[in-house]
Amino acid sequence: MVKARPGGRTAAVRAAVLRATEDLLIDAGLAGLELPAVAERAGVGTSTVYRRWGSVPALITDMLCDMAERSVPRADTGSLRGDLRANAALVRRTLSAPREGRLFRAIIAAAASDDATAQALAVFYDRRVAEWANCVHDAVVRGEAPERTDAEAVIRQVSAPLYYQSLTATKPLTTRDATRAADAALAAVAAGVFSPARRPGS
Amino acid sequence: MVKARPGGRTAAVRAAVLRATEDLLIDAGLAGLELPAVAERAGVGTSTVYRRWGSVPALITDMLCDMAERSVPRADTGSLRGDLRANAALVRRTLSAPREGRLFRAIIAAAASDDATAQALAVFYDRRVAEWANCVHDAVVRGEAPERTDAEAVIRQVSAPLYYQSLTATKPLTTRDATRAADAALAAVAAGVFSPARRPGS
Repeated sequence: MVKARPGGRTAAVRAAVLRATEDLLIDAGLAGLELPAVAERAGVGTSTVYRRWGSVPALITDMLCDMAERSVPRADTGSLRGDLRANAALVRRTLSAPREGRLFRAIIAAAASDDATAQALAVFYDRRVAEWANCVHDAVVRGEAPERTDAEAVIRQVSAPLYYQSLTATKPLTTRDATRAADAALAAVAAGVFSPARRPGS
Repeated sequence: MVKARPGGRTAAVRAAVLRATEDLLIDAGLAGLELPAVAERAGVGTSTVYRRWGSVPALITDMLCDMAERSVPRADTGSLRGDLRANAALVRRTLSAPREGRLFRAIIAAAASDDATAQALAVFYDRRVAEWANCVHDAVVRGEAPERTDAEAVIRQVSAPLYYQSLTATKPLTTRDATRAADAALAAVAAGVFSPARRPGS
């Protein structure tokens, strides 16, 4: 899901610190995340970490900001079905990757008990969703989706079953699960569930 | 979402211990869950807790078993839309209730880092999903849903957006979110996304 971090000396310190933050979150959750431990794992001075980040919430916020910056841009396959399937495939790959999948589950777990993490995580998803929502905006312009379709809700709808399965079931996510998540969202779009004007049954 | 626990002396001890388990999970997560602490909070002897449950995984498994036993049975409104909306409304109420919502998020957080909890949680959802899947089976019989519709997948599809929002966003869940989750799943059912025979676009 992510690209390599940019180079440079300051960037290298940031990369090492954020990588250490991810490692500690994966290994021990929020309880194991303390600035001295991050500094030690990153191989940088504790004072650097205190000066530059100062607190665990600031560190988590920067980690999620970095993850958003390095995220894969939206697909542009020419059809809404193609774009939503590409998004679903990306979410599946991310949640299924050994390190990234554990990292996302660890961050979501941390957010469940910590308001600052929950806030930073919500901002991360808002950015990711806004990026992919353009697929839906383009589909409306092409006449593939009803006017005033709630683009952000459609993108979240694609991700939801994959995250839900990843968090509440022990079955691995399959490519079929991803395709179905995309197609289910598309069917709801076509039925007008995400566009108030044509919303059925209410 | 849940009914009161049954009465009786042994049942009263179990109720106190499971309630204390829930409290500790909510307050401190899995890290704060130790049998002596549970016994103290429940006001029962430590030896009772060790003899009857023996380990934290056993305690969590029994807690989830108890939650499944006390869960509200499936709706039977006479239509699939009515039943799925009732399910979505129930999920929304559960996740929005101060204590229950925090408990579910705490258990999901615990499952993210602990295999035994993940296993017990998966069993819990399998039971809940099987109970509500009967709504879909009945709808197939009534001709409201295609033959061979994957009933379990439909029920999970209704819950998924509500859990996803509860775990990754800071906006409270609204009744409109619940209605939309049900209607989106219904649209996908009608389009054949959950029934291989009529599955479109693949």
